[in-house]
Amino acid sequence: MNKIEVDSTRSVNRDRLLRLLRIHGQMARIDLARLVGLSPATVSAIAAELLQNGLVREVEGDDEGEGAAGNRGRGRPKVMIDLVANTACIIAVKLSINEIQVALGDFSGGVSETETLPIDTRSISAAELVRVMGDTIADFQTRHTAGHGPCLGIGVAVQGLVRGAETLVWSPALVARDVNIVRPLVARFQLPVVMMNDANSIASAVRNRARYQSVDNLAVVMLGAGVGMGLVLGGHLYDGSTGAAAEFGHTKFQIDGPLCMCGKRGCVESYVSDYALHRDARTMFGLPAVNVQHPSEEEMRAICDLADGGDERARTLFEQAGRVLGYGIGNLIALVSPDLVLVTGPGVRAYRHLEGGMRQGLGDAMVETLLTHTHIESLPWEEDFAFRGVVGQVLDRVPAP
Amino acid sequence: MNKIEVDSTRSVNRDRLLRLLRIHGQMARIDLARLVGLSPATVSAIAAELLQNGLVREVEGDDEGEGAAGNRGRGRPKVMIDLVANTACIIAVKLSINEIQVALGDFSGGVSETETLPIDTRSISAAELVRVMGDTIADFQTRHTAGHGPCLGIGVAVQGLVRGAETLVWSPALVARDVNIVRPLVARFQLPVVMMNDANSIASAVRNRARYQSVDNLAVVMLGAGVGMGLVLGGHLYDGSTGAAAEFGHTKFQIDGPLCMCGKRGCVESYVSDYALHRDARTMFGLPAVNVQHPSEEEMRAICDLADGGDERARTLFEQAGRVLGYGIGNLIALVSPDLVLVTGPGVRAYRHLEGGMRQGLGDAMVETLLTHTHIESLPWEEDFAFRGVVGQVLDRVPAP
Repeated sequence: MNKIEVDSTRSVNRDRLLRLLRIHGQMARIDLARLVGLSPATVSAIAAELLQNGLVREVEGDDEGEGAAGNRGRGRPKVMIDLVANTACIIAVKLSINEIQVALGDFSGGVSETETLPIDTRSISAAELVRVMGDTIADFQTRHTAGHGPCLGIGVAVQGLVRGAETLVWSPALVARDVNIVRPLVARFQLPVVMMNDANSIASAVRNRARYQSVDNLAVVMLGAGVGMGLVLGGHLYDGSTGAAAEFGHTKFQIDGPLCMCGKRGCVESYVSDYALHRDARTMFGLPAVNVQHPSEEEMRAICDLADGGDERARTLFEQAGRVLGYGIGNLIALVSPDLVLVTGPGVRAYRHLEGGMRQGLGDAMVETLLTHTHIESLPWEEDFAFRGVVGQVLDRVPAP
Repeated sequence: MNKIEVDSTRSVNRDRLLRLLRIHGQMARIDLARLVGLSPATVSAIAAELLQNGLVREVEGDDEGEGAAGNRGRGRPKVMIDLVANTACIIAVKLSINEIQVALGDFSGGVSETETLPIDTRSISAAELVRVMGDTIADFQTRHTAGHGPCLGIGVAVQGLVRGAETLVWSPALVARDVNIVRPLVARFQLPVVMMNDANSIASAVRNRARYQSVDNLAVVMLGAGVGMGLVLGGHLYDGSTGAAAEFGHTKFQIDGPLCMCGKRGCVESYVSDYALHRDARTMFGLPAVNVQHPSEEEMRAICDLADGGDERARTLFEQAGRVLGYGIGNLIALVSPDLVLVTGPGVRAYRHLEGGMRQGLGDAMVETLLTHTHIESLPWEEDFAFRGVVGQVLDRVPAP
């Protein structure tokens, strides 16, 4: 190999090491070498360079760490390599209907300092919205990035349909269509800006967990305000040619079923989302309607508490919704046969009440042979998932400092 | 580059050229160079080697050819490179319920000499079936491969679920499960054997047409005895981790709908397959039932003729089936957002009667925004598709002679 090839190989290996440390946490050099498939000598050489540049540090072994496989119980402290989280930072932004959220991403892929700006996103112009996003980022940057190294980029997770990585084709947060959000932010901050659909961002964050790293075909179903999905197929985030894929919430359960917020009837979302569950709970229990389109976490929790307490009507409500979810997952399995379906999102709060109906619906819909391969489980919801997804994408795409 | 690298690059380029000639047909060296992205000199050098080995020949230009882009109407004959079809051969086998078909594949990917052996596949043991397949191949080989170069391999397209490229997990053609079809054939013929699901084989053959070469996300829906699908996602054939994906026919239209041959109710197949259409036509017209599970092409054609002739009841029957098809395609689009959905299979005979209902069903199911990107069209059915798919796979995997 010539010099350019050697340099490029070294830089590829360096990036792979950094990525593994982000996924698995601190690790001994020897474990890192095994995982990355390089010789211990090569890993030590790269680690030395990373130590010198301050991107990693040595810490005393923690055998509880995910990366410490195969060397447990020796009783002797090990020297581990860990990322120096504040080596660099990333600004993570989440645009949803009626709010902009900002958080600080660090070099290890972690997220902190989340702030929420309530704003009537649908009553202002797209240009104004992008300006407000910019101001929010600038203000946040001033207040929170002091102890960190350079800002590597901005990651934006948005509700809605993203095309070509720059354009927000449509979003429930915006009246306007085809809004280029990326270009004005790049121009203003002179930083790389990565934008993606929030469900894809969540799926990306989930797949980057050690536990799911080797799941090549993964569907992450998000229950909550709507019903969304992120798909990893063949090891890569899949969103069709245009970012419009994985609209699981708008697959159908029943022609002429309940009205969905998309305007059509009988979508899975129109049975299983928060607004659908709360609509049915209102009918059943005569609950007050505060915000019928976006019931609060407390309101949703109250219905869940009823089921927890043994209320049969509440249990039936979740069981019926679970059945629809199972039917929908049946269609998903028929079409893409994922290895794993993870059910998460705020709506996973009621998973224990949904699960029975879900398994029942699946069994009603699909012959056993088609179901045996796919595992279905829930994943506790973390508000940070969408942030962590875009932070991970920026870290994957931008060279380390 | 060292010698091994040079040789390997040359062999990769040679295989790419051969593949392009299979897809686009005869081509001038200059067009081939443009398409493959190599210099004309490199292409000429490879072509000279291929000519010498007898894998290609020079023919007088045919400006109607798909490969002759950009040089039309010059009025001067051009020298084109074309594959020598009988340089080598491939035995293609199709295993379906109650028949084994065999055909001769050639070096250009074409198929001829198809023969059908009716056999009660479900009443004999798996071992016996594999033996009969072997005898059929051996007999066919004796009678049909004389004028051809070496046999490069055997390609097997099967109804049912294939795992790990060797095992037929289940098939309507077999009572037994988990039958290894590949190993006994390899042992007997000492040739590479490629086995794949017939729907995937068809999708692979379709994608290898010049017209669909650049469609990265392609769904091929097959209407006929059942309703099947082959999926190309991100440019690659997608069938999940286990070959169980793309069971489009068993996605659901309606809970508790008509009984499907899979044993469940309301599958798309239970409305749109030949047996479903004939079931409904029998009800409507009091037709005799000869083989309710597998109505003949003539019986299906007769229903289609009624609709062609303006019979309103027959038209309504297809329109209603089309609506279910549209709903199903709506779910497919919601989940994987393909660039193109091709409707084919023997059932495409009635596409003109299905299409109106299909578009209606799609519009009922999905908001416009999710539909705009996906194009839907029909593709006339060719019996050879499944053969050509496995022949192409053998040619892609086995080095040229």
